[in-house]
This record gives sequence, structure tokens and C-alpha cells, in this order.
Amino acid sequence: MLPSNSFDSEFSVSWTHRLRFTDSSFNDGTLDTLISTLSPLKILPVIDCGVTTNTAFMDDVTNWLANSVFETSKPRIVEGGEVSKNSMRVVDQVLEDINTNNLCRKSCVLVIGGGAVLDAVGYAASIAHRGIPIIRMPSTTLAQCDSGLGVKNAVNYFGKKNFVGVFDPPFGVVNDIRLLSSLDNRHWCSGLSEAVKVALIKDETFFEEIEQQSAQLLNRDLTAMGNAIQKSAILHLEHITNGGDPFERLNARPLDFGHWSAHKLEQITNNSLTHGEAVSIGLVIDIKCSVALGLLDNAIADRIVNVLQSLNLPTSHPALSDPALLQGIEEFRQHLGGELTLLMLKGIADPVDVHALDFKLVKQVFNELL
Amino acid sequence: MLPSNSFDSEFSVSWTHRLRFTDSSFNDGTLDTLISTLSPLKILPVIDCGVTTNTAFMDDVTNWLANSVFETSKPRIVEGGEVSKNSMRVVDQVLEDINTNNLCRKSCVLVIGGGAVLDAVGYAASIAHRGIPIIRMPSTTLAQCDSGLGVKNAVNYFGKKNFVGVFDPPFGVVNDIRLLSSLDNRHWCSGLSEAVKVALIKDETFFEEIEQQSAQLLNRDLTAMGNAIQKSAILHLEHITNGGDPFERLNARPLDFGHWSAHKLEQITNNSLTHGEAVSIGLVIDIKCSVALGLLDNAIADRIVNVLQSLNLPTSHPALSDPALLQGIEEFRQHLGGELTLLMLKGIADPVDVHALDFKLVKQVFNELL
Repeated sequence: MLPSNSFDSEFSVSWTHRLRFTDSSFNDGTLDTLISTLSPLKILPVIDCGVTTNTAFMDDVTNWLANSVFETSKPRIVEGGEVSKNSMRVVDQVLEDINTNNLCRKSCVLVIGGGAVLDAVGYAASIAHRGIPIIRMPSTTLAQCDSGLGVKNAVNYFGKKNFVGVFDPPFGVVNDIRLLSSLDNRHWCSGLSEAVKVALIKDETFFEEIEQQSAQLLNRDLTAMGNAIQKSAILHLEHITNGGDPFERLNARPLDFGHWSAHKLEQITNNSLTHGEAVSIGLVIDIKCSVALGLLDNAIADRIVNVLQSLNLPTSHPALSDPALLQGIEEFRQHLGGELTLLMLKGIADPVDVHALDFKLVKQVFNELL
Repeated sequence: MLPSNSFDSEFSVSWTHRLRFTDSSFNDGTLDTLISTLSPLKILPVIDCGVTTNTAFMDDVTNWLANSVFETSKPRIVEGGEVSKNSMRVVDQVLEDINTNNLCRKSCVLVIGGGAVLDAVGYAASIAHRGIPIIRMPSTTLAQCDSGLGVKNAVNYFGKKNFVGVFDPPFGVVNDIRLLSSLDNRHWCSGLSEAVKVALIKDETFFEEIEQQSAQLLNRDLTAMGNAIQKSAILHLEHITNGGDPFERLNARPLDFGHWSAHKLEQITNNSLTHGEAVSIGLVIDIKCSVALGLLDNAIADRIVNVLQSLNLPTSHPALSDPALLQGIEEFRQHLGGELTLLMLKGIADPVDVHALDFKLVKQVFNELL
């Protein structure tokens, strides 16, 4: 019992996370219907400069803005890629636009871009007036499969990844497959490692589909890609909204499977690897660790490696010889803020948590892969 | 029914808001017990420079830090008052300390200070690593009665009040009555206008208690003040946690009773009025408007004005002749982001929402009060 001068009061706050799939967001009513649900007073469009090279898509944006029944501001074009969240530049640009255009909490930011731009713009929208609703249109395979669904909004600070940020779910996410058409082959495919990841921890049938469809996926078949993205995005969404820990208060982070080494590999290679590529290598490392720990059959590990290779994803890297890579384990433990919790596999869609990983075993896995 | 490419997923996040009352937080176990509930890896103390003049209290802080079983960092002393949230200086200082001392989401910030310092430091803690838990020790009557309980954390930006911020409930709030002993008479009393406000909208018995105890409150009677603060804080806490709208998504803001003019009066007078004083005048304005609207009996209005005056609180101001003051209504509507919703009184603890306020009627009230 609490003493008489103590008062504990519980309360909760609810959100709806809205996910849409389309190949024609501006013309088939997908976006208009979603925006009408929100009924914003004003809309500020923010567009990743990488998207502006997709002329067919940009024509749609321009037409939509010219004819929209909603009150829209002049679109802000921002720099793309990790650089957009390495400083406060993009955040400040969006805050300036929110201020200049008098957006309020009943307004809306509509952001079209890759994961880093979604992060930086989402952060700006989350802190302006304690949260302006945002609709995200992820423009990369990676962001449509995974990061665009997240409830995190963050930028890098003190040279540290996502040091400054908030949890704030988007009002909605529109995955328009046509945004991917302007991606080069490398970025078209590399985000699929996150689809493989979520299939490996949650859905064996989905893993088999990726395995069977790998040639079509590699050959830019829109139907195959649309299916893979839809399944990956929904599995990520379900984990966030039904997994019991949307704001990451617990120690386990199943969606970070393969990520302790992936984050470190990106850093060691000065981001010459895409996040998707680093995750592919990271998955192989943790799968091989699962084998070395006696948890997983080696034949299954080889099957997974084959699927990643069939998607043109890297499964090894010279940086595996860098002693700094092992520090990724300790940094991941620090990131969790307590006990180390790493997900390993006993089989496909059969994960298990481990709380220690012997350095000698990991080094052996690195040597095997080099 | 949603079309097949639409997925809506609801989820919620829970918080516990912990409120403690004491006259000896560092010695009677109040703070240690609260911190033990959190069990943080590290604690960063941040102290309002205004508190450092309270030497008896600071001795307790120093002793506690020297003997604490918890891992504590060197306390950061920050500037106090509104200036602490007028720039990013305090926010950046706290972010620097969080980074330098390697605080993580399993750590804790312990902030001791007035409402503005709680806001700026709370904002820094909320954005670092997407939220480091914070324990607040409000050091003013105003912050102990009202603002220290809030789930808002914000700083001023583009010269606009609270333009940048987030909703993020504190881990706990410790109201130590001893912190008030170093306040001058003006600040000792002026925060009580928020206690009168919450009594007027929610609790007639509490209003009568303030009325009966006004002489003791004015004469710095600690028991009377402790009672008033406890009742006011609990009413505010209950509104936030049981009022159904902790993150202010709806249009009504009952706790902003009297605040449309109070905010504007602070601005017009260049903050020569304390927030509590401005709220006192703002309450009188809305009470007299309630009378002018035919909602409230004039005898009750006079009784309320008498209570405010018995607490040495101002009930009029030359700035009521400033035409800019009326703009406060439109700014409040914009702040709500849609329909104007103002709380008026039909009686004590008998509020009613109105959605328009005739300028002529308000001007008449101003003239009456001048």
C-alpha cells in the first residue's frame, strides 16, 4: 500500500496506425481518403530530393497539389539520405515551414522520401506544437518494407545514431509501389533483407514465397515486389501494434535481429554499405552464430544464405576482419540499457532469445565467412 | 469496411503518473523509494539556480548526493525563469550532460526547479534516446500546484511560447513544501491562483477551504499551504490522468480557464506579471464575462474576486485598456486548432463551454474592471 502522501495514477493513450498499399496514390483516392479521415486545416508537403528525379511521380504530385481540395503549402524539397539526419538542417527547414505557414496540431505534414528523410521530417513534425500529424510515403524498398512503419522519429546528434528523437506514431503510411520504379538495382533489392529478416522471425510461408519469387524480385517484377513489401510491412506493423511493446520499454528487440553487427558494419565501412546490405550480412552472422551455438541446423542456415544471395545481397564483407566489429555487441547492450538480449534462430520462424554471445564463437563465425 | 489494401491497427501505451508530498524529500525516504521503483543505472541531477539560494535545502541535496546508493553525476546548475526556455541553451546543456555521462533510457534525470526549468529540462530528457525518465521536484507554488504535474515538455521557439515540445509524462513528481520556504512573498502566493482556478472548475469544498484559510496562506503557514498544494495538485493530476484527453487531442481545455487573457497579459506586460498573477486577472475577466453572459450570479463573482484579493493577487491591470488583449481570444482559438472552446462558470464547480465571445461584451468587462 502506498503511504498517504503518495498518489499513483495510471492512464493510457491510444493510436491508430494506418497502412495503405497502392500503385497510384494520388489518382486512385488512396491519399485523398486517408487525408479526409484526418481532415486537416493545412497540408505541408515535404519531398526527398531523390524522389524529384521520378518525373512521372512528380507530375502526379504537381497535378494533385494544383487540384487538391485541401489547403496545401508550397512543397519543401529536402536533401536525401543519411546526411538529412546528420544535422538539424532538415529539421529546422521543416520547423520554419510549419511556423511560416501557420500549421497547427490540426494540420498535417505529408512527407515523401527515404527512411532518413522520414526520420528527420517526422522528428520535426513530432516536436512542432507537441505533434503535428504526419502521413509518410516511403520511397525506398527498405522504408516500404520496414522503417517507414516505425513509431520512431530521430536524428543523429553528437555523431551518435538517433541520439535525439521521440516515439510518435504516424497518422498513416502510404506504400506506393510506383515510387520504387526510379530506384537503381542496388536499392531496389537491398531493402528486401528486412523482408527476409521479418519472415525469418515470424512467418515461414512468407520466407518460402521470397525463396520461390527471388528471380522475379531481382528482375523488378512489380507484382512480386508489391506482394513482398505488403507482407513485410504488415508483419512489421503487427509487431509494433500487437507486440506489446510499441515504445520499446522492454529489453527484447526481435525486429533488431541481425542488427547489432549491421549497425557497426555501416559505421566501419563509412556507410559504403546500404542499411539493407549491412542487415543481410548481419543476418548471416547471427544465423551462423545460431548454428555455432547448436541451435540451428546448418542446412537451414545455408538455405537462408542462398535466398539472400539469390537477391544479390552480400553475405560477407572484408570488414568482418575488423576487431571493432565485435564492439557492436556491447554497444547493442548499452542501447538496450541493461541486459543483452539477442535473437537467435532454432529454425525458420522459430526464434529464441540469448543473453550472452561468446567473443571466440563470434570470431570463429567471422573467420568462416571471410 | 476498409478496402483490401488498407490496414488499420489500434494500439495503446500506458503510463503511471506518480505524485508525492513531503517536507523532507531527501531524508524521509520519499525520493529514495521513488527512485528505487525506477531502479535507474545512473542519475543526472539538474538544479535551477534559483534553488541554490535555499542553503538548507541545498545542504540536503549535497549530503544525499554524497551518500546515495545510486550512481549520480555531478549536478548541472541551470539558469532559472522563462529565459531558461527562451533558447536552446539549457536543453543543449542537459543533452551534453546526458551524452557525456552516458545516460541511457534506463537512467534518470532528477530536476529541481521552477516551471520553466522543468519544461526545458523535461524537453531535453524527453528527446534524448527517445525519452529518459525524469523525476521532477517543482520549486515554486505555481509548479507544485499545477505546471509541475503536466505531461507537456516544451520550449519557446521563433519567439513563440512552447512552439517546440512533446507530450511525455514524468516518471514522478515530488512536491517538497520546504522548497517554497525561500520564495519571496510575491511568488509564495501568486501560484495559488492556479489552485483557485482548479477549485472553481472542479471542487466547491476546496474553494471554501481556500476562502477560509486565506489569512493563513498569506501568512506563510506551511500546513495551510501544504493542504492547498496537495488538493490543487491532485485535482490537476486527476484531470490529466482521468479526464480522457491527456495529450490534448480534443478542443476543450478546462484547465486553461482564464488563460486566454492571462497568456496575452504576460506578453503585453513583458512578463512583469508572474504567470500566477496573470491567471488571477484572467480568472476575474472570465468570471465577469460569465456574469455578463447571464450565466453566473454577480454575488458569486464578487465572492471569487474577494478570495483572490485576500491572497494579495491582482484582479485588474492597466493593460486591460490595451486593444491587443482581445487578440488573445483568436490566438487561443488558433492554439486549439479549430473551434473556439472557452470555459465559463454557471457557479462554483459548475462550468460550461462556450464557443464564441462577443468582443463588445469583453470590452465592457475590461472597462468595468479598469
